[in-house]
Amino acid sequence: MEPASTNYSITFLPSGRKVRVESGTTIIRAARNAGLHINASCGGTGVCGKCRVQIEEGSVSEGISDKLSPDDVHQGVRQACTAKITSDLVVRIEESAGLKGGQLGTEVPERHRASLHIFDIDELQQEGIFIPPVEKFFLELPKPDENDRQADTGRLLRAMDEQYDERHIHINLYMMQQLRRVLREDDFRVTVTLARPVNKRFRSMLQHIQSGDWSKRNYGIAVDIGTTTVYGQLIDKHTGKILSEAGHYNQQISYGEDVITRMIHAENPEGMQQMHALVTESINSIIDCMLEQTKVAANEITSITLAGNTAMTHLFLELEPHNIRRSPYVPVSTLFPPIRSTDVGLHLGGHCMALLYPAVSSYVGGDIVAGVMGSGMYRTDKTTLFIDIGTNAEIVVGNSEWLACAACSAGPAFEGGGILHGMRAGAGAIDDFSLDPVSLEPMIMTIKSKPAVGICGSGLLIIIATLYECGVLDQGGHYNRELVTDRIRKGRSGYEYVLVWAEESGIDRDIVLTEVDIDNFIRAKGAIYAGMTTLLSEVGLTVNDIEQVILAGAFGSYIDLDSAMTVGLLPEIDADKCMYVGNGSLMGCRMSELSNHIRRDVVKTMQRMTSFELSDVPSYKDQYVASLFFPHTDSQLFPRAAKRRQVMAQVKENGVQSA
Amino acid sequence: MEPASTNYSITFLPSGRKVRVESGTTIIRAARNAGLHINASCGGTGVCGKCRVQIEEGSVSEGISDKLSPDDVHQGVRQACTAKITSDLVVRIEESAGLKGGQLGTEVPERHRASLHIFDIDELQQEGIFIPPVEKFFLELPKPDENDRQADTGRLLRAMDEQYDERHIHINLYMMQQLRRVLREDDFRVTVTLARPVNKRFRSMLQHIQSGDWSKRNYGIAVDIGTTTVYGQLIDKHTGKILSEAGHYNQQISYGEDVITRMIHAENPEGMQQMHALVTESINSIIDCMLEQTKVAANEITSITLAGNTAMTHLFLELEPHNIRRSPYVPVSTLFPPIRSTDVGLHLGGHCMALLYPAVSSYVGGDIVAGVMGSGMYRTDKTTLFIDIGTNAEIVVGNSEWLACAACSAGPAFEGGGILHGMRAGAGAIDDFSLDPVSLEPMIMTIKSKPAVGICGSGLLIIIATLYECGVLDQGGHYNRELVTDRIRKGRSGYEYVLVWAEESGIDRDIVLTEVDIDNFIRAKGAIYAGMTTLLSEVGLTVNDIEQVILAGAFGSYIDLDSAMTVGLLPEIDADKCMYVGNGSLMGCRMSELSNHIRRDVVKTMQRMTSFELSDVPSYKDQYVASLFFPHTDSQLFPRAAKRRQVMAQVKENGVQSA
Repeated sequence: MEPASTNYSITFLPSGRKVRVESGTTIIRAARNAGLHINASCGGTGVCGKCRVQIEEGSVSEGISDKLSPDDVHQGVRQACTAKITSDLVVRIEESAGLKGGQLGTEVPERHRASLHIFDIDELQQEGIFIPPVEKFFLELPKPDENDRQADTGRLLRAMDEQYDERHIHINLYMMQQLRRVLREDDFRVTVTLARPVNKRFRSMLQHIQSGDWSKRNYGIAVDIGTTTVYGQLIDKHTGKILSEAGHYNQQISYGEDVITRMIHAENPEGMQQMHALVTESINSIIDCMLEQTKVAANEITSITLAGNTAMTHLFLELEPHNIRRSPYVPVSTLFPPIRSTDVGLHLGGHCMALLYPAVSSYVGGDIVAGVMGSGMYRTDKTTLFIDIGTNAEIVVGNSEWLACAACSAGPAFEGGGILHGMRAGAGAIDDFSLDPVSLEPMIMTIKSKPAVGICGSGLLIIIATLYECGVLDQGGHYNRELVTDRIRKGRSGYEYVLVWAEESGIDRDIVLTEVDIDNFIRAKGAIYAGMTTLLSEVGLTVNDIEQVILAGAFGSYIDLDSAMTVGLLPEIDADKCMYVGNGSLMGCRMSELSNHIRRDVVKTMQRMTSFELSDVPSYKDQYVASLFFPHTDSQLFPRAAKRRQVMAQVKENGVQSA
Repeated sequence: MEPASTNYSITFLPSGRKVRVESGTTIIRAARNAGLHINASCGGTGVCGKCRVQIEEGSVSEGISDKLSPDDVHQGVRQACTAKITSDLVVRIEESAGLKGGQLGTEVPERHRASLHIFDIDELQQEGIFIPPVEKFFLELPKPDENDRQADTGRLLRAMDEQYDERHIHINLYMMQQLRRVLREDDFRVTVTLARPVNKRFRSMLQHIQSGDWSKRNYGIAVDIGTTTVYGQLIDKHTGKILSEAGHYNQQISYGEDVITRMIHAENPEGMQQMHALVTESINSIIDCMLEQTKVAANEITSITLAGNTAMTHLFLELEPHNIRRSPYVPVSTLFPPIRSTDVGLHLGGHCMALLYPAVSSYVGGDIVAGVMGSGMYRTDKTTLFIDIGTNAEIVVGNSEWLACAACSAGPAFEGGGILHGMRAGAGAIDDFSLDPVSLEPMIMTIKSKPAVGICGSGLLIIIATLYECGVLDQGGHYNRELVTDRIRKGRSGYEYVLVWAEESGIDRDIVLTEVDIDNFIRAKGAIYAGMTTLLSEVGLTVNDIEQVILAGAFGSYIDLDSAMTVGLLPEIDADKCMYVGNGSLMGCRMSELSNHIRRDVVKTMQRMTSFELSDVPSYKDQYVASLFFPHTDSQLFPRAAKRRQVMAQVKENGVQSA
């Protein structure tokens, strides 16, 4: 889908550090990638004017504001936050920062992101399992005559057997009502759409019959029904390619951001119908958008595979969610039958099958099963930790042989909830951060380089990890009140650090991070780490047995691994053993759309996933309490975090010496 | 269903012949059964006054009119046509008829009807196959708790497996939407309605779920969709008993009496919808009637099994019948899927399954397959001829090992069509007849003893056979113009016999039987006999190989076997080898309603039925031409018919001598 982008080499002086970045990256992001700090407090909008750099070789676009004199501009000075890289560069960072050359010291390890796991259609083709659950077949039938008076249905079934080796096909009344006319419209040349059963024992269903050859026009849709956002892909099932992608807010959000509120609403007489209508409307809007983009007709979509958490799936299917949220937490169903898409209100043909990912339990839903499929975890030999962090964190451990899973309530901190200036990952959200350990001046980066308006989940993690590494925060999450800076102060709800002053922010007040915020963050990360260790101990393992980590969900894609390990959210593991799957749920849906074999594996996988209810495990509470520290009460579990803090202390000392 | 009726012994004088008849039978019918003739030309209404008899012992009701003097009545004289038997009787027939004592001679064999085949639920029970396709199960489910968090659907399926050994059950979305509430309404005590697949390989369907125990309230309906009349039975599937029966005209008849006209109408844009609506309305009216009679609620009917000919089935299901009537005569389908009864417009619950009998071909329909099942032909060892006579006659030969079938167009003569005074079997239709061979005066009996208004199919057969036996008709179907009677005369369309004079009829003119009528009858019986012999020769048999004859359909129930053999409609075979199944189609439907094993046998039977298209067989035409005589050009095939004619000639001679 994405065009291959050009990479440029950037050399920063005086440190000499090099980094390769994509064309269009800002210099400040490149510096950040190189582990270099540039003071910048306005979020990259160019208003603070602190992030001046000297372009010594190469060219950039933008990076000019009224903070720079015409002479500056002529000399090659630019603002790092807005200057975009358009060639190889040599850039000198001005030594105005507390650190020499903005350098945090070569000892500081580079920051790591997990690598992206990609699902490839070629794999399916090589394995011979690129056989979509709903497929089209072109048939030329022998015409009836005195020697062959077989009925139209029998004639069709015989041809499917003889020409495609497809047997046990169910033809419903509606199809029979079309059959005579359609067979004769183009002289017994027809295209048949067949939906295969997930269990080979059962029957395929004749979904559609068209006169003429339409066998190459076979499209499917994959949909991740997220609590916040609904994402979709339109797939050419003949080639396996993604033709279009779209996303749209889950309109249920007007009744509450969390699923519990929505489930409560669905218990009202008309609430269920409203919840169903809103999510269906959201899905329809992405369907309409993708159809418009690709000029595929609605009736050319022969299947749609959807995954969501158990509550979302229940609301979409109008299954009563009452007992999902009540002990002992029993959903109506974890397996869902194929449904005519029109029966659930989708803007597709009556012949289009809606296939829902099965769930494991009330709190480990189809989205997680889809993620386990999409990430390939279901068939890996390596003992893998799969984690999808949101308000609820779902954790799966295991491999192709066994799988154990659990969900824990992390609270909304990672989605910006319960944090004074928390927000979702939108324009103006602080998503990256570094700190001059001497001056305690920050480098602030925001999404879309808009004036900062708040802190998103991934930004929060980096900020807290950095403040802890630099000794600004102690193990208990309290600010070091000894530090001399006006950025640390006592606010209304205790001590706080000022990330962005009101005049440089996109709001009318200072953007701060309070100790209350940090406490909420600790509880969130503690719940997840405790969940993970409890689940591991239930299956007789420890974090040391983990050979691979898969991060799923939007947060997982943006997570800074080093920060996550520094604060004790993730166990310490080499970055090359970590990968993220982005929207693993969507990827799982796409895989199912393209391979009925994988659809069978889905059910097998779901049945293999043993669900643990953490609240039933006595040790969970102890694990949780032990996790309410940076990184953990048992610091031996996090040797790298300790080392990093030591290094930073050294850097700070050197910085102070050189200042 | 029917109360056991009382039988009385009637002795006729002077012949001394005895006969046993049911209470309420008229004396004239009793005489007829005894092979005795009483002149009676008004059809049993009492107006002609010819049928005087003397009651010598015992008592009768009615039988009195102004044709009898008070003295006659006092002396015990009654009119045989209206006098109803209420005790054992000795009756003297007055010797006013041409024959001594009304006697046709003791040499004349008694008339025979085939015996009724009865299907008995006890057989199913003994064989252990009284397992309805749609059954109810009462379940007490274990309640969810911390140790058992299985979803509602899984919990239900587990219980079905553990408590009833039922597996592979499909639960559709609609059922899932009810499930949570229903399970908890009566503390996890529920009744499940399960529809079994016809093929064991596939899945059962959860049709309905109710809180509490309703397992004994399980009802089914069997329906024969006849071209003329729709018949139904309401069945208690828990006991196997028939609780109610009803019939109603097939309202499609307003568009034409024959299926071809209706199929043509269904090719009009709105015609199909009309044809569907009319037959559905007819079925609904009998359903409503039976529900009203039994106080069973519509939603307690869990299945309805229907059978009809292929055209009727197509029109009911809105399948295009266009190619049924066009060479090479290909229906849309011969197998029909289970359908939600509401999807075809029936007044039943959405959970009620409509199950359609499969057809063999365009002209051998589900009604015939149902008849082959209902009559037990599908499992007999005897080489059997099954014949259902209507406008089309369907013929099946074979046994439990093999089956061959064909349909031939007999024309509407047996249903009263193409006969000047032909009519359907309704009140006033002449349905029985005998002739005084000397005076040529008839004994006329009508349905419900109403003044004669026409001749129904079974009456026509008896009249023609009797006229032939008595030498009034010759082998070619022409009247003997030598006979001295004003009842034989030259009418508008050739020679005719006057059955009822205008003043004694229920219409304003004489009721006659013309040579044109007889010609139409010969063509009809010839087509059927030729069809039968052609089909037999196709499978390498002759009529001599037939070990058993099964007569189906309304006509078959009333057929006089001796007459049928005299005219050459049926091959000569002992009466005790003949049986009739009445509405075999309805009986087959009831069997299917009660046993899923039989439903499986239906499909196997239908698949074993090899269909022959008579028009493809070159010898059919020759056979047909050879059959256009009474009884056949090859008189050696019908030795008994020849004997009977000889006997009658002798009786006549004796009668003339005694007169």
